[in-house]
Amino acid sequence: MRILVVGASGTIGGAVVAELAARHDIVRAGRRGADVQVDIEKPETITAMYARLGRVDAVVAAAGRVHFGPLAEMTDAKLRIGIDSKLLGQLNLVLLGLDHVADGGSFTLTSGILSEVPVLHCAGTSLANGAIEAFVRGAAPEMPRGLRLNVVSPTVLTESMPKYGPSFRGFEPAPAARVALAYSRSVEGVQTGQVFKVH
Amino acid sequence: MRILVVGASGTIGGAVVAELAARHDIVRAGRRGADVQVDIEKPETITAMYARLGRVDAVVAAAGRVHFGPLAEMTDAKLRIGIDSKLLGQLNLVLLGLDHVADGGSFTLTSGILSEVPVLHCAGTSLANGAIEAFVRGAAPEMPRGLRLNVVSPTVLTESMPKYGPSFRGFEPAPAARVALAYSRSVEGVQTGQVFKVH
Repeated sequence: MRILVVGASGTIGGAVVAELAARHDIVRAGRRGADVQVDIEKPETITAMYARLGRVDAVVAAAGRVHFGPLAEMTDAKLRIGIDSKLLGQLNLVLLGLDHVADGGSFTLTSGILSEVPVLHCAGTSLANGAIEAFVRGAAPEMPRGLRLNVVSPTVLTESMPKYGPSFRGFEPAPAARVALAYSRSVEGVQTGQVFKVH
Repeated sequence: MRILVVGASGTIGGAVVAELAARHDIVRAGRRGADVQVDIEKPETITAMYARLGRVDAVVAAAGRVHFGPLAEMTDAKLRIGIDSKLLGQLNLVLLGLDHVADGGSFTLTSGILSEVPVLHCAGTSLANGAIEAFVRGAAPEMPRGLRLNVVSPTVLTESMPKYGPSFRGFEPAPAARVALAYSRSVEGVQTGQVFKVH
């Protein structure tokens, strides 16, 4: 398969590339230093990327920003950071990519455990993650030409514990290489409309 | 209690008013014909509403638009209709209302069964509903002064079956009066961070 990995330079994206590269042709996409440039917050760069790439068999999205901060200081504008980036950035990869993925291909997005579990100062992330998962459930039955649509929901990464550990006391972290297996199940399996939880 | 019901002229809002009015002082809010005018898509009208009302003990939100349409014709702009209205309209009622609800008071929002269950042409509604539920779970532990935050997720209403029945074949509808009980549990109970499902 020819697989587009958006966010390939990230911790998860890199692990997905490592997992899939032995068996597939990988196209790395990202804001810089990748095979093809894309900023998922700018839909016109998504359109340009797909036009340049031609047909792919699968798209993996492991990209997107969110705002972290206290609820008391939360605003409409701060919530829109995650909405414009992690949520609509990933969904635009689907909506603008429908005609560029081969019959029977797949899209695999990224949410996270915060869709289900509250963590201090992460309400904006919970919102974005929950929205992605609900969209995947709602949209999968309408995907054309046998295309599949799933999302991977990882817990906190082992690699991120030095930075995020204090916010995730008592959570069992997962190494990115283990999280990457869920992307493999989505891309190389047969399921659709699923939230593949790694937690 | 003094309870603000936003969307009081809707099917759910009207049933909530009917359920709570016997025991409480109700302030009806909506775009027209209510005790106080508010358009939740315009944050400045939310701010003005709270400034005019003074202190309330509970806020119920049963308002917000979404876009219905085929996935093949879905766009960023169409998804933003539900994001700006049902999602951020309701969340702004919380964020802008934090200082206007009495100690120990509550906010009760409205999502719907589509957060969990796919229905044709409703992916945008699934997104908005899932985002509201995840935000409620994520934000509830950070609410100040003992304020509580919940959401009611109704199935399709019996009253809506003449219009929406063809999209909800096999779903067991619930009358608005039964759905209103879930709002009563949220407002008059002790739980927080909950999705009260009526399905």
